[in-house]
Amino acid sequence: MIKKILIANRGEIAVRIVRACSELGIKSVAIYTDADRHALHVKKADGAYNIGSDPVLGYLNAHNIVNLAVASGCDALHPGYGFLSENPTLAEICARRGIKFIGPPAKVIHQMGDKIQARQAMIKAGIPVIPGSDHNLENVEEARKLAKTTGYPVMLKATNGGGGRGIRRCNNEEELTKNYDRVVSEAGKAFGKPEVFLEKCVVNPRHIEVQILGDNQGNVIHLYERDCSIQRRNQKLIEIAPSPQLTEAQRQYIGGLAVQAAKAVKYVNAGTIEFLLDSDNQFYFMEMNTRLQVEHTVTETITGVDIVQEQIRIASGLPLQYKQSEVSYRGFAMEFRINAEDPKNEFLPSFGRITRYYAPGGPGIRTDAAIYTGYVIPPYYDSMCAKLTVWNLTWPGAIERGRRALDDMAVYGVKTTIPYYQEILKDPEFRSGKFDTSFVETHPDLINYSVPRPPEQLAAAIAAAIAASEGM
Amino acid sequence: MIKKILIANRGEIAVRIVRACSELGIKSVAIYTDADRHALHVKKADGAYNIGSDPVLGYLNAHNIVNLAVASGCDALHPGYGFLSENPTLAEICARRGIKFIGPPAKVIHQMGDKIQARQAMIKAGIPVIPGSDHNLENVEEARKLAKTTGYPVMLKATNGGGGRGIRRCNNEEELTKNYDRVVSEAGKAFGKPEVFLEKCVVNPRHIEVQILGDNQGNVIHLYERDCSIQRRNQKLIEIAPSPQLTEAQRQYIGGLAVQAAKAVKYVNAGTIEFLLDSDNQFYFMEMNTRLQVEHTVTETITGVDIVQEQIRIASGLPLQYKQSEVSYRGFAMEFRINAEDPKNEFLPSFGRITRYYAPGGPGIRTDAAIYTGYVIPPYYDSMCAKLTVWNLTWPGAIERGRRALDDMAVYGVKTTIPYYQEILKDPEFRSGKFDTSFVETHPDLINYSVPRPPEQLAAAIAAAIAASEGM
Repeated sequence: MIKKILIANRGEIAVRIVRACSELGIKSVAIYTDADRHALHVKKADGAYNIGSDPVLGYLNAHNIVNLAVASGCDALHPGYGFLSENPTLAEICARRGIKFIGPPAKVIHQMGDKIQARQAMIKAGIPVIPGSDHNLENVEEARKLAKTTGYPVMLKATNGGGGRGIRRCNNEEELTKNYDRVVSEAGKAFGKPEVFLEKCVVNPRHIEVQILGDNQGNVIHLYERDCSIQRRNQKLIEIAPSPQLTEAQRQYIGGLAVQAAKAVKYVNAGTIEFLLDSDNQFYFMEMNTRLQVEHTVTETITGVDIVQEQIRIASGLPLQYKQSEVSYRGFAMEFRINAEDPKNEFLPSFGRITRYYAPGGPGIRTDAAIYTGYVIPPYYDSMCAKLTVWNLTWPGAIERGRRALDDMAVYGVKTTIPYYQEILKDPEFRSGKFDTSFVETHPDLINYSVPRPPEQLAAAIAAAIAASEGM
Repeated sequence: MIKKILIANRGEIAVRIVRACSELGIKSVAIYTDADRHALHVKKADGAYNIGSDPVLGYLNAHNIVNLAVASGCDALHPGYGFLSENPTLAEICARRGIKFIGPPAKVIHQMGDKIQARQAMIKAGIPVIPGSDHNLENVEEARKLAKTTGYPVMLKATNGGGGRGIRRCNNEEELTKNYDRVVSEAGKAFGKPEVFLEKCVVNPRHIEVQILGDNQGNVIHLYERDCSIQRRNQKLIEIAPSPQLTEAQRQYIGGLAVQAAKAVKYVNAGTIEFLLDSDNQFYFMEMNTRLQVEHTVTETITGVDIVQEQIRIASGLPLQYKQSEVSYRGFAMEFRINAEDPKNEFLPSFGRITRYYAPGGPGIRTDAAIYTGYVIPPYYDSMCAKLTVWNLTWPGAIERGRRALDDMAVYGVKTTIPYYQEILKDPEFRSGKFDTSFVETHPDLINYSVPRPPEQLAAAIAAAIAASEGM
């Protein structure tokens, strides 16, 4: 069993990993740049190392991080999500230096990171893919020719992209021509590789993804699906498990398909296979994420399986603890990404000092936060500062619990997405459980909430807190 | 359906009831005495009324409270636990004034509150009771005579007592003689009625209690059992569901017995039947609590049923939402009563200002707290200031999660039972899942922990919080 883990990440996911380590009796080592000196992951880990003054570069320097893992006596490294989590080089360096990488082998990260290779692997495995390129596009002429056979609209995508970035929809030949150079350029800038490919656009699909776990003994199970259709500009906002819009037969089918896909690429550790579900109820493979995802909490909540602990067990060489038949789900879980953003101002980041943080309590509530009262959110990172996950036995119950929990939660000092989510929860279409990825775009009026003011009672509480501090 | 509820209580249970109201779309009205002006239940409810300057008396004045319910437009009243919750007079006044009492009928409260009547009802219903009195004792001679037939040790109990108070163990005739007048006097002072009775003492039993729900249509179900054997001087400290020391057959048996008992007394609303389980695996009826219990959270966690919402639905006249076959349990939940007490000083209450409160997060954690950073715990009430409930799929997993959550939680400014619970979680007997009500008494060394100091990192966080407050 692994004994000491270097956490190559920051924020809420680093705290999440510390918690898993603590429960397993494993020591955790955090890293932080100067800007993160007061970050919660630094306080919660058993030890912490400063990795430099640049706020971001330290988290991206694979060689330095692995050196630090070795020097601090770690025998494993957890990459979290974002940063280097889908960079095969980190996994390779770990392997070379005798550090267990808590994720799949470098080869699989590489294969699934290249969207053309991933498509080909899925076709070979018998998984339905969206009609489109079977290789990288040579030039705009080839793109136009292919689009004629698939029909418009089409999606131009960076071959090495992912996470909803490096994607553009083209409704006709004119738009395709106009966007081609732009996507090539974006791909080069964002992912270091200019290759692009094309797929037919699945119009207003539902985003359904399946969590899988595979061990080194060749066993693969799924932990059911998540519905991530509530997104804005391809960035997820609210994730739900299980999907309220699948039948039990669809649920079993897509779970089986995901296991088939993962086995075909000899997948090991936790991963997610993302599918699109079109209006004819056809599933299409979209991409595979070879890492822990932000929204793993909803799956943990309905199945009771601790995915991060499972990742660590698998990386230690242990077989899966559960057979497929032993994994059940119960009720509905919903995760709200609490972003420090101003929804009324194009979701512009709203960084600064948290003057008051109060985590909601009572039944069916989970919080994964990187903030505390007095913490200053630095401007250099993703604006997600907390995750609120709610659960109830029924879908309507989960909605009411979500509403109550968002009311119960207090994040003052910065603007957040909390009031926007409160509007979404009132919307009849959302409440019906039937929505697709166009929901946010087609409901622009949900932004017209009146800005909530902290009630008088909270002002009194803040005054009391100030009095308390002064008295110390 | 009920539309507006007056909450005749304070602290964490009042907050718990506000949360249930909020999820059901019901308005909540809090009450508070001057000492509770800054209490969390006042901030969280939709409205709040001051009920006087005496810290306690206002919460005990049934007439005033029901008047306030009527005047504020409430159609129902929730008594919580403690205070007037098991006082049949409150239920009677509510009935007379057209306010729905969220609990059983006054008659049942009265019957179960009189331990002799309760014993007789249970005997009639075929429920095993502890050998002892079938009527109130006339005098010490009668007590001595009865004790000779049951054998020593015996328990002398206040007939109208409950909640672990007004009870004394007598190991021989001498102790019985010495204690008789004392218990009579205590019973008169604490419960207003001097009647006492006697039962054979079940030596080192396990405390197993069953949560039941009954509706006005005569349906009764159980929500499985709780193991509350970890107690100090008859006060529960840690409660667990399901009991790690029952077989599935015992679980089904005791659940069935509880339903049989509740049906026999025509029980309506939520209630708990407490049993003792002796070393020969015999169950004996101990008492019935005709109210919501502190430890209802562990049952909610394993079954997913929101007991407070069910109470409100039942009081509204709705039938139970679930059939017995539809109620399942999963994993193990454990509740820690976070008391503002100093375990190293005979658990003396430790009231004062909370300089820092941080609720633990991540998977499998629930907090029900009455505190916040800056709050001053008043010295007039029960010392329990928060409840921490943890859950995991397995018993060993629940222990590790509990350990992690207690580490993760911060309650500074007062002494608490947190470090004591951390010691209990390390104890091999506790970890084995086999323990009885003598556990605390037979493990006096668990009090010898070294007093934890807030780590340097937390000091920094506190400094940041102060800076934040000053900058406001």
